[in-house]
Amino acid sequence: MTLTSRRRFLTLTAGAAALPAAANATRAETTGPRIRATGDLGLVVERATGSLLLIDQSDRAALARIEGLGDLSHASMVYSPDERFAYVFGRDGGLTKVDIVERTIAARVVQGGNSIGGAISDDGRLVAVSNYEPGGVRVFDADTLEMIADIPTGAKTIGLVDAPGRRFVFTTWDTGETWIADFSGPDPRIRKITGIGKNPYDGLITANGRTYITGLFGEDGLTALDLWQDDPKPVRVLPHYGRGERRMPVYKMPHLEGWALTGDEFVLPAVGHHEVLWMDARSFRETGCTPTHGQPVFAMARPDGRQVWVNFAHPLNDTVQVIDTVTKEVIHQFTPGPAVLHMEFTPRGHEVWISVRDAGKVMIYDTRTFEKRAEIDAQSPSGIFFTARAHRTGL
Amino acid sequence: MTLTSRRRFLTLTAGAAALPAAANATRAETTGPRIRATGDLGLVVERATGSLLLIDQSDRAALARIEGLGDLSHASMVYSPDERFAYVFGRDGGLTKVDIVERTIAARVVQGGNSIGGAISDDGRLVAVSNYEPGGVRVFDADTLEMIADIPTGAKTIGLVDAPGRRFVFTTWDTGETWIADFSGPDPRIRKITGIGKNPYDGLITANGRTYITGLFGEDGLTALDLWQDDPKPVRVLPHYGRGERRMPVYKMPHLEGWALTGDEFVLPAVGHHEVLWMDARSFRETGCTPTHGQPVFAMARPDGRQVWVNFAHPLNDTVQVIDTVTKEVIHQFTPGPAVLHMEFTPRGHEVWISVRDAGKVMIYDTRTFEKRAEIDAQSPSGIFFTARAHRTGL
Repeated sequence: MTLTSRRRFLTLTAGAAALPAAANATRAETTGPRIRATGDLGLVVERATGSLLLIDQSDRAALARIEGLGDLSHASMVYSPDERFAYVFGRDGGLTKVDIVERTIAARVVQGGNSIGGAISDDGRLVAVSNYEPGGVRVFDADTLEMIADIPTGAKTIGLVDAPGRRFVFTTWDTGETWIADFSGPDPRIRKITGIGKNPYDGLITANGRTYITGLFGEDGLTALDLWQDDPKPVRVLPHYGRGERRMPVYKMPHLEGWALTGDEFVLPAVGHHEVLWMDARSFRETGCTPTHGQPVFAMARPDGRQVWVNFAHPLNDTVQVIDTVTKEVIHQFTPGPAVLHMEFTPRGHEVWISVRDAGKVMIYDTRTFEKRAEIDAQSPSGIFFTARAHRTGL
Repeated sequence: MTLTSRRRFLTLTAGAAALPAAANATRAETTGPRIRATGDLGLVVERATGSLLLIDQSDRAALARIEGLGDLSHASMVYSPDERFAYVFGRDGGLTKVDIVERTIAARVVQGGNSIGGAISDDGRLVAVSNYEPGGVRVFDADTLEMIADIPTGAKTIGLVDAPGRRFVFTTWDTGETWIADFSGPDPRIRKITGIGKNPYDGLITANGRTYITGLFGEDGLTALDLWQDDPKPVRVLPHYGRGERRMPVYKMPHLEGWALTGDEFVLPAVGHHEVLWMDARSFRETGCTPTHGQPVFAMARPDGRQVWVNFAHPLNDTVQVIDTVTKEVIHQFTPGPAVLHMEFTPRGHEVWISVRDAGKVMIYDTRTFEKRAEIDAQSPSGIFFTARAHRTGL
């Protein structure tokens, strides 16, 4: 083997840049390149300031700040298929379409009073938002944000996801129903499935779009639906999952987006205990548990499924643990800083970006050596969303 | 439910455009937008003319033709993490870096005499090419195409893939060895695994980067390596897979890229028979077989894993069959036209693009209704590669 120019090459890849204060962008101020491929970009939610930080994975840098997004507490987002536009769902009912090439807000509507997440259809043409108030789902043209359909449910609506076949799936808190809204034909069709359980509080869909799982606040256990069946029936799984005898306040219920799917197994935060649980992805039977540093919030699988990274609830939220999915043992523990809120892997898993709110930093780690590669200044960062999400369904 | 503007909306999405002859692009001629998000783009190999057709999934349109790629028989490509650059591997040893934003050739080297595929490292910094002549793998800086490392194997080298952890895996035809080249440290490290079998002719890696499977020409069976093990040992699986008693000429051996992974099972073309085989992805045991129209070439899983689309060898290569992965039965058969060479799904699976070489068309189908949505003129199209591949490993 001969080896040339290796040292120079490595030097080239080690850079990281912080955002100059002047880079807060409006369209007129933008000095970024007019040509911009967007496959390696992302947005960080800056909750306290209602702004988004545009980030570049390859350069490990912040590129611009986009402001005027409203209330971004518990905000989430999805991306258009071309990875140019982000649809940001604010808790205040705001639906904002952000152009990450122009670094501007392309469109914004306040579509409800109290919203809880959104989804984008598999063809990228429809964006849906679920609302507590008024309870239901509203569907918008992804191009114009014009409302295409209004689906009142008469109940607080949670767990909205997109499923293959231009479908949206969502669940009602008050009545325990899951609705499947199918937009593949000339007119939308709604199927309602009852008997999901008492007070569903969140839902998820697996990466293949087959299984929809609902968490229950009013009773223990989870409910699974096989969306490949013509007439999906609720199946109760993991019957002891939940608050059990130790009744916890509602804000302790882990959101189901905190689950990992490692390939063969789900890894999910236990409710109110210092452990993560393992569940076989085919049989839904519990296959193990791993004691953890604190009450887990997110259990995120590295894209190859070999590791699961876990962060924790207050006051133990300065720490991250890494679990090996073969041995189910903690192989690494470290302290990024105060208030670790979210973690996002690069699409092929070589790095992880971690938001450390009270340090005002996004920190970037190598997932094999665990070395810190860079850090980026951010204003109270929470959720991190890379554009590669455009090409994925579910977990 | 109220419904507004639905008809107009549907009309907007039904367009398809053919490439005007004048759109053959060089940089000076390009009139396309200077702002171009690339997440929904792709390239079609036009083998006979050594050109690439740039395509847009969302508009179902051809945008430009890029020429001067050399011999593109059996050409394949990978994409940079930002989805701006394609690295095209020609059979003549040409490695061409194509800028799909500028629609130009950004760099080109002829790096070997007889090449067979390439790969890109998980961080997007290294591009590797495997060569028959001289036998081995060469690794290039993805930015400059400067050679970083030359790894002669003393044998024809096949089955090159990228594995997580900045690794490349490849296999030698003459000596039956799999080599793992690890570029994660300051100096590359090579591990050699012997006893893979007699005359390996192709290899694949699963989407999680864990399992590397080698097809054997010199004997029946396949060889699996678990790359998660510290010291991977060859495991022979599917012992009857291969030419068996009916010795077939070499060009009949199906390439392993023709495999599908549906989630729980692999679907693979049988050798010399009119059927696809099913294999459990955990145990590697055969779980079924489905009779097909002809000798299958590619068995491609729709991204949700619910369907497998199969095309066939000459002279039955005008036909495509769709198999349901739950029932393992053919649910649809149709005839796109003469010489169906390749199929590529949109990242979330709502459409499939099919190259029909002797019709001079790429045809686009809805994967649920099976309706043709559009067709695009192309010059003897073969492989179709969407930019979303940038974010994936393996199958």
